Amino acid sequence: MAVGLKPAESLLPVPGVRLAVLGAELRYRNRPDMVLIALEPDSSVAATFTRNRFAAAPVIVAREHLASTAPRALLINAGQANAGTGEPGIAVARASCKLVGDALGVEAEAVLPFSTGVIGVAPPLDRMAAAIPGLIAALAEDNWLAAGRAIMTTDTVLKGVSRQAVIDGKTITISGITKGAGMIRPNMATMLAYVGTDAALAPAVLESVLVAAVEQSFNCITIDGDTSTNDACVLMATGRAGNTRIEKASGSACQAFQDAVSAVMQELAQAIVRDGEGATKFVAIRVDAGATESDCREVAFTIAHSPLVKTALFASDPNWGRILAAVGRAPIGRLDIDRVAIDVNGVAIVRGGAVAPSYTEEQGKAAMAPEEIEIVVNLGAGVSTATVWTCDFSHEYVTINAEYRT
Amino acid sequence: MAVGLKPAESLLPVPGVRLAVLGAELRYRNRPDMVLIALEPDSSVAATFTRNRFAAAPVIVAREHLASTAPRALLINAGQANAGTGEPGIAVARASCKLVGDALGVEAEAVLPFSTGVIGVAPPLDRMAAAIPGLIAALAEDNWLAAGRAIMTTDTVLKGVSRQAVIDGKTITISGITKGAGMIRPNMATMLAYVGTDAALAPAVLESVLVAAVEQSFNCITIDGDTSTNDACVLMATGRAGNTRIEKASGSACQAFQDAVSAVMQELAQAIVRDGEGATKFVAIRVDAGATESDCREVAFTIAHSPLVKTALFASDPNWGRILAAVGRAPIGRLDIDRVAIDVNGVAIVRGGAVAPSYTEEQGKAAMAPEEIEIVVNLGAGVSTATVWTCDFSHEYVTINAEYRT
Repeated sequence: MAVGLKPAESLLPVPGVRLAVLGAELRYRNRPDMVLIALEPDSSVAATFTRNRFAAAPVIVAREHLASTAPRALLINAGQANAGTGEPGIAVARASCKLVGDALGVEAEAVLPFSTGVIGVAPPLDRMAAAIPGLIAALAEDNWLAAGRAIMTTDTVLKGVSRQAVIDGKTITISGITKGAGMIRPNMATMLAYVGTDAALAPAVLESVLVAAVEQSFNCITIDGDTSTNDACVLMATGRAGNTRIEKASGSACQAFQDAVSAVMQELAQAIVRDGEGATKFVAIRVDAGATESDCREVAFTIAHSPLVKTALFASDPNWGRILAAVGRAPIGRLDIDRVAIDVNGVAIVRGGAVAPSYTEEQGKAAMAPEEIEIVVNLGAGVSTATVWTCDFSHEYVTINAEYRT
Repeated sequence: MAVGLKPAESLLPVPGVRLAVLGAELRYRNRPDMVLIALEPDSSVAATFTRNRFAAAPVIVAREHLASTAPRALLINAGQANAGTGEPGIAVARASCKLVGDALGVEAEAVLPFSTGVIGVAPPLDRMAAAIPGLIAALAEDNWLAAGRAIMTTDTVLKGVSRQAVIDGKTITISGITKGAGMIRPNMATMLAYVGTDAALAPAVLESVLVAAVEQSFNCITIDGDTSTNDACVLMATGRAGNTRIEKASGSACQAFQDAVSAVMQELAQAIVRDGEGATKFVAIRVDAGATESDCREVAFTIAHSPLVKTALFASDPNWGRILAAVGRAPIGRLDIDRVAIDVNGVAIVRGGAVAPSYTEEQGKAAMAPEEIEIVVNLGAGVSTATVWTCDFSHEYVTINAEYRT
């Protein structure tokens, strides 16, 4: 069902980042469900995690470890989210890090754990333990695609992006993989994204680049408004590209790197939406001329979360009254309704807060027909703008999410 | 599809409130689509309206008129919402009030207009004008049921409630009708509620009773989180019951009246949810032990709006991880997740922020099976509580809302 999205077919190796996958039968059978990522010494890692208060055990442990030392390895399992599992879940996450650390000869705190899958269940530690030697033996730089496949739960398409940029006369490589948001299936919960680069940057710069890139990518997408307990986005830099280390979060070298990372993350984030639960449309909602960027975002997300707008998109119904009503209830400080304009795929639908004089139902139908829809709202209140990407709300969404857990 | 809801079969007349219905073929054929309600002189009226900034033309005009003089009549049409219609829509609303006022011998400002139906379209003024003499001729006190039927759009069940109370030794009567929320069908938009009583109260007391009753009834329900452009709830008091006029919003007489009005409005509000779009479950979400009532409400509404929780309810799937994840993302200041407990229909599901040791999947399935579900969340943070009523999210919801406008 993915909208305008083909599976990634090749991803560039990133010098200093080795990956391995293995089928440990944690929950799935006959497919890889564990991933190990190993980083060379002196790599830097920055990460952002879910803001859900019910953070999963691996999120809690990963945050602790990240604050304590420089990561050397990431361990990911698909099948169990290890969220809502209390102390026993924390113990499993810690123990898995210890096992990997011991095997690699690094401290447990240098290992970050990640889980995706059924909430309320921890992965079986014994099977994870049995898989670790095999994972370590299989570590290789050209395993990005395999890792992208192994972290999938009910994603229908393997999602990965590579990009290169020239910084300081050196070609740097960025590769990233991600898996779907929206708690894709009963109890399945997690957006995970891993992006590696061989660029050399100070850790503080890496952190700043990550925050800025996430703000313009993963934080701009929504399937159903449900924030998972396990969301994580990790940016890893090995420094092997040979560029002069970027020490400041400004200047042209940093900007070039920021642009490349932002582009990779934006493409990954959009891929999640295109492969959203039951998606039949890919929808960009741009809100222009707001008093603040925050106002623009609030309006865009209110439209993006409206079940009525989403079902109209599914039906290709030019039901602009629903968009208008969503704008009207967005939680922003001020809205001068007489200045609001709405366009859908270039057709002027609302002008001055009411239906545009030129608008015809035929125009509306034509505008709503394509798989890719752009809704542009102009608030007439300032110069800020924001864009949010989402998908429609189909019968398939209900089927996927109402289907009893197997 | 209405859940545990039978059509109202009789409603008590309220002395001093006369109603009439007529089929003016504004949009529907062969059914009444206009309602006129006339109030005896010296009646008091209080009303609350949508908070959507794109308030419909009749909402804008009704607010103005209400501020200017004591209402003597209400004119309601079903079929066109008269929202997003700009100045021409306002002109239609004003003109319809003038026509009714002239015919009744009162000023136009003593008439309040209300509309429900398709956004972006104003009702045809000529047909409304033609219907007004017939409406006036048909005014009678025993037309509550007919009025309840005439304001329906795609509601499946006629919703009305009557109740009596003894105040000051006198029997007072309260009758109310309502129509469904949730923008029930493509472009259909509006919750409307009209409650009349013959109790005698000062206007300020009536206003205070209305606000308190709405806060505990219509403001506690949600179908899909989409606030319509036309919502209105009107409380009318004719003072014909013979009780000593209640002058203060305190004391036992006021409390007895408040309780009766709140009970009527709560039953009407719950009827809307029971007749919600595609509803197969009626769900009460009670959040206990919050630091503030506002916290409890935020948590309850976050659960109530989660498409994942709603589809799990449709599937009768004890997918408590989704409830937990919704609690975790609720926008409240503080959440001590280790103290969170969740029960569904009396089954302990979450204790101390993790799955309850006693919980079994069989218990969960049994708890989720009935048509009526009570979810109780304990935040372990204080003594406040709040309850929100909602319904599930079914295939039928998507069908209803994706169906092309006829």
